[in-house]
Amino acid sequence: MILSLMAQYPEQLNGVFQALADPTRRAVLGRLSRGPASVSELSKPFDMALPSFMKHIRFLEDSGWILTRKEGRVRTCAIEKKAFTAADAWLSKQRALWEARFDRLDALLEDSQDE
Amino acid sequence: MILSLMAQYPEQLNGVFQALADPTRRAVLGRLSRGPASVSELSKPFDMALPSFMKHIRFLEDSGWILTRKEGRVRTCAIEKKAFTAADAWLSKQRALWEARFDRLDALLEDSQDE
Repeated sequence: MILSLMAQYPEQLNGVFQALADPTRRAVLGRLSRGPASVSELSKPFDMALPSFMKHIRFLEDSGWILTRKEGRVRTCAIEKKAFTAADAWLSKQRALWEARFDRLDALLEDSQDE
Repeated sequence: MILSLMAQYPEQLNGVFQALADPTRRAVLGRLSRGPASVSELSKPFDMALPSFMKHIRFLEDSGWILTRKEGRVRTCAIEKKAFTAADAWLSKQRALWEARFDRLDALLEDSQDE
């Protein structure tokens, strides 16, 4: 379902990969892979003003990498697997294409040895 | 080796993922996964001036996704696995972190059922 959606709207992959092109966003995802956390907890390791940090959080949310929920003054973030699945599917497809190519090369080499 | 290099220079991952945040570059990689091709062959599907297209080729080369070789007037491009391996390793690490977390949750649930 996600794969067909991403195939239908391939521009969503732009944001999926753009999200990973930044060390702060990768570090936030690394932290959230261990479990949910509040924005204030997530921001602690970074020497960054809160508005700048929030831009990264929104980018991760908009690109499908995280979900956020606000209760009172606390916004909690959690990893979402939608973007991961899309990124992983794209990479797996490239790998499948190479492997098919090398399998064909192997078959050709074997045929030429048989002759 | 590649993993430790990327762990040592994590900023290289910025370029690895930035390269994938563009539909032209993803399409070029998709084509090259099927086998090497010249720049002029690669550029055909795109309605883009050659200097703009060459910027994408250079980005893919600089970020470790492709190798290029010039013979006479023809520049041939081929996929390189360095960037793929780095991207794949980063994603796999996130998956391993979640799975460890869910395994711990399962263990906790089983323990509480046993009690």
